[in-house]
Amino acid sequence: MPVGTLASVKSLTTEQLKSLDPQIILNNTYHLMLRPGVELIERLGGVHRFQAWDRAILSDSGGFQVFSLASIRKVREEGVEFRSHIDGSLHFLSPETSVDIQQRMGVDIAMAFDECPPYGWSREEIEKSLEMTHRWAKRSVAAHAAAPPALFGIVQGGTHHDLRKRSVEEIASLDFDGIAIGGVAVGETKEEMLDTMRFTTPLLPADKPRYLMGVGTPEDLLDGVAAGVDMFDCVMPTRHARNGSLFTSRGKVVIKNAQYADDGGPLDPECSCLTCRTVSRAYLRHLYVNDEIASYVYNTIHNVWFYLDLMRGIRQAIASHSFAAFRATFLNRQPTTDNQ
Amino acid sequence: MPVGTLASVKSLTTEQLKSLDPQIILNNTYHLMLRPGVELIERLGGVHRFQAWDRAILSDSGGFQVFSLASIRKVREEGVEFRSHIDGSLHFLSPETSVDIQQRMGVDIAMAFDECPPYGWSREEIEKSLEMTHRWAKRSVAAHAAAPPALFGIVQGGTHHDLRKRSVEEIASLDFDGIAIGGVAVGETKEEMLDTMRFTTPLLPADKPRYLMGVGTPEDLLDGVAAGVDMFDCVMPTRHARNGSLFTSRGKVVIKNAQYADDGGPLDPECSCLTCRTVSRAYLRHLYVNDEIASYVYNTIHNVWFYLDLMRGIRQAIASHSFAAFRATFLNRQPTTDNQ
Repeated sequence: MPVGTLASVKSLTTEQLKSLDPQIILNNTYHLMLRPGVELIERLGGVHRFQAWDRAILSDSGGFQVFSLASIRKVREEGVEFRSHIDGSLHFLSPETSVDIQQRMGVDIAMAFDECPPYGWSREEIEKSLEMTHRWAKRSVAAHAAAPPALFGIVQGGTHHDLRKRSVEEIASLDFDGIAIGGVAVGETKEEMLDTMRFTTPLLPADKPRYLMGVGTPEDLLDGVAAGVDMFDCVMPTRHARNGSLFTSRGKVVIKNAQYADDGGPLDPECSCLTCRTVSRAYLRHLYVNDEIASYVYNTIHNVWFYLDLMRGIRQAIASHSFAAFRATFLNRQPTTDNQ
Repeated sequence: MPVGTLASVKSLTTEQLKSLDPQIILNNTYHLMLRPGVELIERLGGVHRFQAWDRAILSDSGGFQVFSLASIRKVREEGVEFRSHIDGSLHFLSPETSVDIQQRMGVDIAMAFDECPPYGWSREEIEKSLEMTHRWAKRSVAAHAAAPPALFGIVQGGTHHDLRKRSVEEIASLDFDGIAIGGVAVGETKEEMLDTMRFTTPLLPADKPRYLMGVGTPEDLLDGVAAGVDMFDCVMPTRHARNGSLFTSRGKVVIKNAQYADDGGPLDPECSCLTCRTVSRAYLRHLYVNDEIASYVYNTIHNVWFYLDLMRGIRQAIASHSFAAFRATFLNRQPTTDNQ
């Protein structure tokens, strides 16, 4: 899922986004409840009409950003009181208000409101938080009428196998339409993330979508699918695009580098995106070093296409029972140096 | 002509630009000779391939930016020595080198190298400059082989009717493919600009394209056409788009204004551009106030379309002998307040 934080996948018009053919995108509840506010979105006919997007939208619960962005907050059993990181205004999110906001925005998939423990919390803190997250999950299910949107639960538990297992049992016992692995990519090492993901994913029900939140690199997506993950979201393709860091079938291209100044070839000769079909690395570097807005657009088109095309390739490979070969081929062509 | 300063019409990919259907765009020689440099553009196959644009490109001569942007310069009969406003590097432009650079870039229409007197010069200074510009015009024609690109001459003379008349006689006597009115929109009042344009345009040969440089508002375009102008270039649609100032059939919309926060209607109900067809004023305001890159893109699509659509309307009206009525209708619907 490309991330459309403020009802806009950064740098793209909705028409450009459609041309990249994602099945679903993600909106951030925290950002949208502050700007432009759920009342406005509801009055204007919901998020689909607001951002002119007629395919599926998943919203997060707001929890992650409350815990990572909001400056002041009180976490109570009832919910979380916090101040906007923009203007300091006071807001409140709970399982009930989060589900309500997501329903009113008119998304297709809502996420249950959870507490996402930051990396570094003790096992005791994580366990205590986890128990509240489970109580909140029950309240989310209760608040969610049978009507749309679908509602996904979130498994927490830090890097602790036993807590993750307990969380899966709790969350899987509730009436959710899908289950997400939360609390990863929050500062832990890559090995800890992969270990948590590989341990937790097979425990999830096979008959519900499995969603790994906030992950990750192309390699991470392949690892996740290998473990049984169905869905991902990550700002990496759009954010890296703005920084001129471009994913290709042969590894990362840092487009500002002088080696591309005179390079008349396409960014990725094997990519069929608009950027690779129409302009050269030299032109992309020229736009980037001169801070042209079109640089963000061309780079984002490529990176988002690269991610979506990787997932299309993975789905085809699974359908033709050749995922392992597909993954090996992809990884063999990436340089072994850091691809973060 | 939309302006593509650095081989990019700001905020748009070439595909988006094509969808707006301009017949021709303008590139800035000064900017491109500094970044990425004419050697690089030539090596990569010329500007059309560089920016993936297969329609016509007109380049200015570099003169205007040398006189307005370059920090240090020596103006001699031979040409102008100047330092780049970016890195202070030393460069030289003359009638011969300017034509050479434009030919090597591979543009379709090149402009003769002229001196553009800033507003405020005395009549004596303007007259002296004008005589050099006329000598430079002869050298431009001599330097320009019969091969492409076409070469346009530039009429100067400040706001002085007799100097403009003399300049038209000089420039029209030379073997140019079209003639431009330069030295307008350089700080003079709107009345002075219109007076100069209205006086000069009818003096120009009827059988060659007449190009009014650096103008202007939609109203200016209608005034120019009424006086006999065929071509215009201006950064106004793209620059105003980035500032959230949007042209519509009912006047200017400053999209950040709170009155649009809750406005679910299209930016201009009579406009058929992508922006007006797909998103609301409320969404455009939301993108603008949150500094989303898509704001620049949507706004630029609309403003450039508005200008191009105005010119399409003008051409159709001329063909059907109804230009006066077309102009009156357009102006009657614009508010009488400042539309600059």
